[in-house]
Amino acid sequence: MMRNTALIMAGGRGERFWPRSRVNMPKQFLSLTGDGKTMIQRTVERILPLAEIKDVFVTTHQKYKQLVREQLPELPEENILCEPVGRNTAPSIGLGAIHIAKKYDDAVMYVLPSDHLITHPQIFRHTLTDAKEVAEAGENLVTVGITPVYPETGYGYIRFRPDEMLGRAYEVERFVEKPDLENARKYVAEQQYLWNSGIFIWRVSTILKNLKEYMPETFAGLQKIDAAIGTAEQDMVLEKEFQAFKSESIDYGIMEKAKNIYILAGSFGWDDAGSWLSIKRFRERNEFENVVDGDVVTVDTRDTIIQGGKRLIAAVGLKDLIIIDTDDALLVCDKNCTNDIKKVIEYLKSSNRTEYL
Amino acid sequence: MMRNTALIMAGGRGERFWPRSRVNMPKQFLSLTGDGKTMIQRTVERILPLAEIKDVFVTTHQKYKQLVREQLPELPEENILCEPVGRNTAPSIGLGAIHIAKKYDDAVMYVLPSDHLITHPQIFRHTLTDAKEVAEAGENLVTVGITPVYPETGYGYIRFRPDEMLGRAYEVERFVEKPDLENARKYVAEQQYLWNSGIFIWRVSTILKNLKEYMPETFAGLQKIDAAIGTAEQDMVLEKEFQAFKSESIDYGIMEKAKNIYILAGSFGWDDAGSWLSIKRFRERNEFENVVDGDVVTVDTRDTIIQGGKRLIAAVGLKDLIIIDTDDALLVCDKNCTNDIKKVIEYLKSSNRTEYL
Repeated sequence: MMRNTALIMAGGRGERFWPRSRVNMPKQFLSLTGDGKTMIQRTVERILPLAEIKDVFVTTHQKYKQLVREQLPELPEENILCEPVGRNTAPSIGLGAIHIAKKYDDAVMYVLPSDHLITHPQIFRHTLTDAKEVAEAGENLVTVGITPVYPETGYGYIRFRPDEMLGRAYEVERFVEKPDLENARKYVAEQQYLWNSGIFIWRVSTILKNLKEYMPETFAGLQKIDAAIGTAEQDMVLEKEFQAFKSESIDYGIMEKAKNIYILAGSFGWDDAGSWLSIKRFRERNEFENVVDGDVVTVDTRDTIIQGGKRLIAAVGLKDLIIIDTDDALLVCDKNCTNDIKKVIEYLKSSNRTEYL
Repeated sequence: MMRNTALIMAGGRGERFWPRSRVNMPKQFLSLTGDGKTMIQRTVERILPLAEIKDVFVTTHQKYKQLVREQLPELPEENILCEPVGRNTAPSIGLGAIHIAKKYDDAVMYVLPSDHLITHPQIFRHTLTDAKEVAEAGENLVTVGITPVYPETGYGYIRFRPDEMLGRAYEVERFVEKPDLENARKYVAEQQYLWNSGIFIWRVSTILKNLKEYMPETFAGLQKIDAAIGTAEQDMVLEKEFQAFKSESIDYGIMEKAKNIYILAGSFGWDDAGSWLSIKRFRERNEFENVVDGDVVTVDTRDTIIQGGKRLIAAVGLKDLIIIDTDDALLVCDKNCTNDIKKVIEYLKSSNRTEYL
């Protein structure tokens, strides 16, 4: 059995959780579910039964390094891999891969987003272990799909071949971008599609080989970064190569083109925590379907999310609202308009009110 | 022509303007219309062309005396008449009457609420001047009614005799409590009803005579208070008699029983400022019918009132809401539920959270 390592991707922004998430405090560093631990802490906790902490790596933007250190004090500092600039998931995964390859000749690599919600961690780990078997059985790129229970238009879909199995995984036929409602309904009905979770499992050697084949320029840059590790030029080379990288997702750069792609159907209570509504699915609701944190008085209020700050909040006669109170900014948003929160952020950017971003 | 005096009643609470109004800061001391001046300041300003400031008297609870002094620095301190305990309008008006009677043998007395909104002060003063003529013409009790333009169920109505006029006033037939919608519609349609504004005009001698006849116990108490003015027992007697007074409105105690009641139809843009919705009628709205104060960003938001405090407020996808932000408490309330704000206050009382009351 090959050694397990984990690469946790923690470079994201999460603007939809404004005003709690900010440029300097993205959602992976927040405790959105009110259980005291932050999302990245939960992500590490979830994987630790499968991998030792010394084999857990985190890629993030360098401005979040201090947050990672504070929230994961047990993580070796050298395992925090800082990107000078965000270039989407492919360069990020490549950076993780060269560091793991430097430490171990070969190893299994669990690639995990740091900002997703999972209600059933044990089932999650069983799925990863099944995926590992497939990853070890050959030069396979394995992903975990989520069994779609409704026609979500905010997720990508992956079409698989139900009759072509390797272990517990299906052969992937193709990746599908976020569909419209009509297509989403079709995908759910056809029972040959899973949601794209952004979770990947492969051997380090396999992903490096695929990077070389499908993203040769990025691979060449990664080799230069690799050669500079431990030298005086390390930071300069990292900066230079990352700036030069094309911004590309691993899905588009490799998964949609490579061979031997497999997918397992996961059912561990997954949500990508894409908006405040996700939080609602994961939190205990009171008898009026409200999710309430903080010092809150509700009168005749239903289906409403309230995250209080330091002040008393009174909600009277409300339905389908999201109220997020922080020290310097308050959001009141209709449940069906969470996508428009980014318009607030755009306005704040355009009017140079950076203190609120 | 008899001397004009004004009695401004400023003892009210205004719980519906929570969280801006508080036990220690009732609505008459707030600037709810965002024009910089408070409601009691506007009330005094409005009457000053008719009465000298030395002839303006204010009745209020003693805990608001300091607020009155701060907001009306030009008012002689001895004109602030403090009630040890609130006993509704009849004892309050009686207290004003004995003080005015002590200063002047007889005078016309304009009785004015301190917390109403009026858009056309000059028309208001013309109406009061017309009312004064009726008050001087005999032992008449004169009130100003507001021409009802819709079937409001939150106001009392006054039925008048359209064919029985004295000057510009009609004879009052009867006072009607707040009606249900069906009756309110009937009253508007019949064109023989006006809204009860709580504004009264009479000679001091006339109201004292009526107090003696219809509220003899209260009148006797007022005589004791009168006799003690300027003596060492002044405060003690005031305290004792006010505690003993029956809590009674001038409408119920006198107006509904007395003879020679007259009413003028006022059309000076009046609103009793009964809730945040009143404010909306009196404020400039933007193109989306929002009334917004403070540091506010709105996206796809309509028919909403937002009064910001020190923080940024982002409103996304909202309709028909009221958002009031203060340093220690936030209210988010549906426009149709302003009556339920008192439930919040009741809850805060019952849980002893007096700091928010």
